[in-house]
Amino acid sequence: METLTAAILPATIRRRPADSHKGTYGRITLIGGNRNFGGAILMASAAAVYAGAGLVTTITDASNQGSLHARLPEAMFADITDTAMTQSLITSANVVVVGPGLGTDAAALAVLKTVFATVTAEQTLVIDGSAITLVAQHHLTLPQAHLVFTPHQMEWQRLSGIPIAEQTAARSRAAADRLHATVVVKSHRTQIYTPSATYENPLGTPAQATGGMGDTLAGMVGGFLAQFADPDQAVLAAVYAHSAIAEELAERQYVVLPHQIIDELPRFMHEHQA
Amino acid sequence: METLTAAILPATIRRRPADSHKGTYGRITLIGGNRNFGGAILMASAAAVYAGAGLVTTITDASNQGSLHARLPEAMFADITDTAMTQSLITSANVVVVGPGLGTDAAALAVLKTVFATVTAEQTLVIDGSAITLVAQHHLTLPQAHLVFTPHQMEWQRLSGIPIAEQTAARSRAAADRLHATVVVKSHRTQIYTPSATYENPLGTPAQATGGMGDTLAGMVGGFLAQFADPDQAVLAAVYAHSAIAEELAERQYVVLPHQIIDELPRFMHEHQA
Amino acid sequence: METLTAAILPATIRRRPADSHKGTYGRITLIGGNRNFGGAILMASAAAVYAGAGLVTTITDASNQGSLHARLPEAMFADITDTAMTQSLITSANVVVVGPGLGTDAAALAVLKTVFATVTAEQTLVIDGSAITLVAQHHLTLPQAHLVFTPHQMEWQRLSGIPIAEQTAARSRAAADRLHATVVVKSHRTQIYTPSATYENPLGTPAQATGGMGDTLAGMVGGFLAQFADPDQAVLAAVYAHSAIAEELAERQYVVLPHQIIDELPRFMHEHQA
Amino acid sequence: METLTAAILPATIRRRPADSHKGTYGRITLIGGNRNFGGAILMASAAAVYAGAGLVTTITDASNQGSLHARLPEAMFADITDTAMTQSLITSANVVVVGPGLGTDAAALAVLKTVFATVTAEQTLVIDGSAITLVAQHHLTLPQAHLVFTPHQMEWQRLSGIPIAEQTAARSRAAADRLHATVVVKSHRTQIYTPSATYENPLGTPAQATGGMGDTLAGMVGGFLAQFADPDQAVLAAVYAHSAIAEELAERQYVVLPHQIIDELPRFMHEHQA
Repeated sequence: METLTAAILPATIRRRPADSHKGTYGRITLIGGNRNFGGAILMASAAAVYAGAGLVTTITDASNQGSLHARLPEAMFADITDTAMTQSLITSANVVVVGPGLGTDAAALAVLKTVFATVTAEQTLVIDGSAITLVAQHHLTLPQAHLVFTPHQMEWQRLSGIPIAEQTAARSRAAADRLHATVVVKSHRTQIYTPSATYENPLGTPAQATGGMGDTLAGMVGGFLAQFADPDQAVLAAVYAHSAIAEELAERQYVVLPHQIIDELPRFMHEHQA
Repeated sequence: METLTAAILPATIRRRPADSHKGTYGRITLIGGNRNFGGAILMASAAAVYAGAGLVTTITDASNQGSLHARLPEAMFADITDTAMTQSLITSANVVVVGPGLGTDAAALAVLKTVFATVTAEQTLVIDGSAITLVAQHHLTLPQAHLVFTPHQMEWQRLSGIPIAEQTAARSRAAADRLHATVVVKSHRTQIYTPSATYENPLGTPAQATGGMGDTLAGMVGGFLAQFADPDQAVLAAVYAHSAIAEELAERQYVVLPHQIIDELPRFMHEHQA
Repeated sequence: METLTAAILPATIRRRPADSHKGTYGRITLIGGNRNFGGAILMASAAAVYAGAGLVTTITDASNQGSLHARLPEAMFADITDTAMTQSLITSANVVVVGPGLGTDAAALAVLKTVFATVTAEQTLVIDGSAITLVAQHHLTLPQAHLVFTPHQMEWQRLSGIPIAEQTAARSRAAADRLHATVVVKSHRTQIYTPSATYENPLGTPAQATGGMGDTLAGMVGGFLAQFADPDQAVLAAVYAHSAIAEELAERQYVVLPHQIIDELPRFMHEHQA
Repeated sequence: METLTAAILPATIRRRPADSHKGTYGRITLIGGNRNFGGAILMASAAAVYAGAGLVTTITDASNQGSLHARLPEAMFADITDTAMTQSLITSANVVVVGPGLGTDAAALAVLKTVFATVTAEQTLVIDGSAITLVAQHHLTLPQAHLVFTPHQMEWQRLSGIPIAEQTAARSRAAADRLHATVVVKSHRTQIYTPSATYENPLGTPAQATGGMGDTLAGMVGGFLAQFADPDQAVLAAVYAHSAIAEELAERQYVVLPHQIIDELPRFMHEHQA
C-alpha cells in the first residue's frame, strides 16, 4: 500500500490551458437528494462546481430546486421523476455521480436502475451513499462504465460482504478487483483501491466527523474526474485535497463543516496546481 | 449556588480522538418550526451542527424544507406530519430537542405527545420554548428520559408555578427537583439547576436581547449533550459558551444576531477545548 | 430647518441596560411583500432585526416564507391573507410598518384598511411605499396612532398634493401638520418633518440610488422606533445612520446595496451609541 | 480590429452626479430562467443589480421566485406566464435582457415573440443564450430596437451561419452588420462588433471556463447599458470589466465562480470610475 503525499496534487491539477472553454472541463450530472436528504446532493453539487467542473447539472427531488439555486445558481436542475430528462442528462455527461441523499426506497431504486441502464463504457460513474446500499441490497448488476465507489466502512461491508473489523487491505483489494472498480473506503485513514494500486490517505482530522462530509467528497471526486486526464490520479487527488483542506480549517475550528471545505476549494487548488 | 467560570469549557469540550467518526459525536433530532416560526428550528438546528453534533435531523413543517437546506445543507429534513418517521427519528437519536418554534396548537400538542410516548430512559430530551408552555398548559406527564428544560422566566413561571418575581434559587431548585430534570432558567443571569447542583452564569450581554437567542441556545445544549460525556457539564458549557461568544461579538456590535453566535462556534470551541 | 449632525446618534442610541430582555427592545410587525415585491419586505424586516428590535414578525405573501427564513431566520412569519392573525400581530406590536412591497391592488388595499382599523392611539405606525400611494389614491382616513410616513418625492406628491417641483419646506411642513404625522421625504437631501421641527439630512450618496433603499430605511425607522424612547429622535437617527453607513460603503463601492447597509448596522450602532 | 484597454472603464463608468436617484440609473427587465435553468437568470439579475442598475425586475418561472429573493432581495419578480405583466415590464424598461436560462421549448419561443412584439425602437434589447438559439432556429424577424447579441461561438454559428472554424473578424463583421446589431462573440478572446467598429478583449482567464459566466456577462452588459450614456462603450466596458475581475480573482483561485465576479463589481467599478 502506498501512502499518498501532496505530490498527487500538482501531478493531477493541471495548469489550465489559456485557450479553453467550459466544455474543456467536463460535464457532470449528479443524481440524488430525495425530500429528506436534499442537503446531501446540494453539497455534492457545490463541491463539483467549486472544484471547477465545466457544466454541472443536479437531478433531484423537485422540492430541492429552490434551495439548490439559493445556494448554487451555477448548477442546473432537473426533476428526478422525469426519466427521459434523466436519461438525456446522463448521456450528455462525461461523469455521473449517483447516490448522495438518494435514499433507498422504490423510487430511488428505479432511478438507480435507470442510471445503470443508461451509462456507457465511455463514461465514469461515481456510486456513493444510498446507491451503494441499493446495489448491495438488491444485488444489482453493475453497468459497463468506469466505476468508482465511495463507501464508508459500513457501506463497504454491505457491498463487499466484508465485516468492518475484517476489512484488511488484502480483502478489500480483492473485493475491489471483483467489482472492476475503483473503491474509496472512507474512514479515519481512507484507503483507495484503484485498478492498479492501493493507497492510504495519511490525512484526515476528527473535526471532519460530521454529516455531509461524504457527500462533499463524492462531489469533489466527480468534479476532479470531469476535468483531469488520469482518472486514478483524479480520485486520489480529490481524496487528498478534501482531507488537506479539512486539516487546514481544523487548525482553527473544532468542527469543520462540509460547505466550508467547498468554499476553500478554488484557493486550495490554485495553490497546489502544477 | 456556584458561579460558572471559563473552566467549564476545557472540562467539557474534549479534544477529539483521532480515530473517530460522525457516529462518535451523536445523533440529534430537533423538532419544531411550524409555518410561522420556522426560523426558530432553523437556528436551533444550525447551532447543533456548528457545535459539532455528528448527525442532525430537523423535523419541521414541510414549508420550512427549502429554507432549512438553503441555510444548512448539513441537516437532514423530515416532515412533522409524518408520525412514523418522527417516531423512527426519535428512536434513532441519542438526543432529542423539541420546542423551538413548535407553537401551541393542537398539532403541536400531538407532536409533543408523540415525542413523550417515544423517548426512552436512555435518551436525553431537551424541552424548549412552546413545548414547555404545552407541558404546563396541558399538565402533560413527563416521560422517563434525561430531561433538560430551557425556559425563559415566563415559561418557567408556567411550568413551575412560581411567579417571576418569586423565582428564588431555593424555590426554583425545589421545582427542578420535583421535575427530575435539569432546568436552565434563561434571564439576564441565567441559572442552571442540574440534579446535583445549582449554577449561575456570570456572562451575558443586553446585545443578546433579541428573538432567536433561546432557540440557538437550545440547539447548542442539544449539540453539546450529543457529543460530550457528562450531561451536566454539557449543559453548563453550552450556556457559558453561548454567552461568552455573545460578549465577544458585543465588543463590536450593538446587537448580536443568533446566527452570528452560531457562525463563531467552531472557532470558539477550538480555542477552548481541553 | 435644522441640519442633522452625528450628534443625533449618541443622543438616540442608548447604551443598553444590563438587566434587559428582548421585550425591552420592542415588538415590531412589518406588513408588505406581495408575490412580486417580496424582496422589499425582506429588506425592511432585516433592517429592523439588525437595528436591534426585540421581536420581529413579517406579514407577507405566503410565497415569501421560504426566502424570508433563508435570509433571516430571526424573523417570524405570518400569511398576509390570514386577517385574524394579522390583527393579532398588529395588536401585540408597539410598532407596525406597512407598505414595503405591498402593492396597490385590491388585496393590498384590504390589508391596509385592516391595519388602519386595528392600530390604536398608543401604537406607532410607519406607512411606506405602496401604502402611501394607496392612502392617496383611495383618500383613506388615517387612524389615530403615532404616524410616520416615509415617501419618496413622487409618493409625497401623491399624498400631499404638492408637485415635486413645488415641494418647498414651508409647503411640506404645512402638509405634514395637516396629516398630524412625522414625514420623511426621501430625496438627494432627505427632509424630516416631525411634529415639532423640520430637519434636513446633509448626508447621502448617489451610490445609494438603487432599488430597495427606501424599504431598508423604513425597516430601520421601525426598528429604531421600537426600542428608543423619543420617537422624533428615533426617526432622525435612523435616517442619519442609513446615509452615514451608505457614505462609508461608498468610499469603496460604486453602488451600495441595501443589504450591505443592513449588515453594517450592528457595528455602526455600536460605534455611535451613547 | 481595436484591442480594448483599461481606458474603456473610466471612459464609461461616470462619477455619479450627487443629485440623482434610482431612476437616473435605468430600469432593466431580465427575462429567462425556466424550471431547469433558474440559476442563469438569477446570476444575470444579480449582475445587473451589483453593476448599479437603478431598478431591476426578473421575469422567470414561478418556481424561481424563492431562490431569487433568497439571493437577491433587491430584484423584483414577475411570473413568466403572465403575459400582460411581461408586456408592461418590457414597456417600462429602458433595457431588456432576454435569454439566460430561457430554454428553447414552445413556451420559451412564445415569450421571446412577446418580447420582440413589445420592444420599441427607443429601447435596448440584449439577446443572450437560448434566445439566440431560438432566433436562429425559428428564423425570427428581429424587432426595431437597439439590439445587442451575446452569443458564444456555437450560438454565433447558429445565428450567423458561420461555422466556428470560419468565424473570422471579417465574416463576423459582415454578419453583425446584416443584423443591425452589436454582437459580442464570447470566446477565449471575446470580440465585440459595434455598429462602428470591431474590438477584441485582450483579457480572460481559463479560470472563467465554468457554467454561468455568460449569464453573468449578459446581466452586466444590461446593467451597464441601463445607466451609461454611450451604448457602445457600455458594452465594451462590461466585457472588459467581467474579464478583468476574473483575472484578479484567478490570481488566487483555480476556478472563478460567476457569483464571485458579481460580488466584486461594486468595488471594481469604484476603483475604475472616471
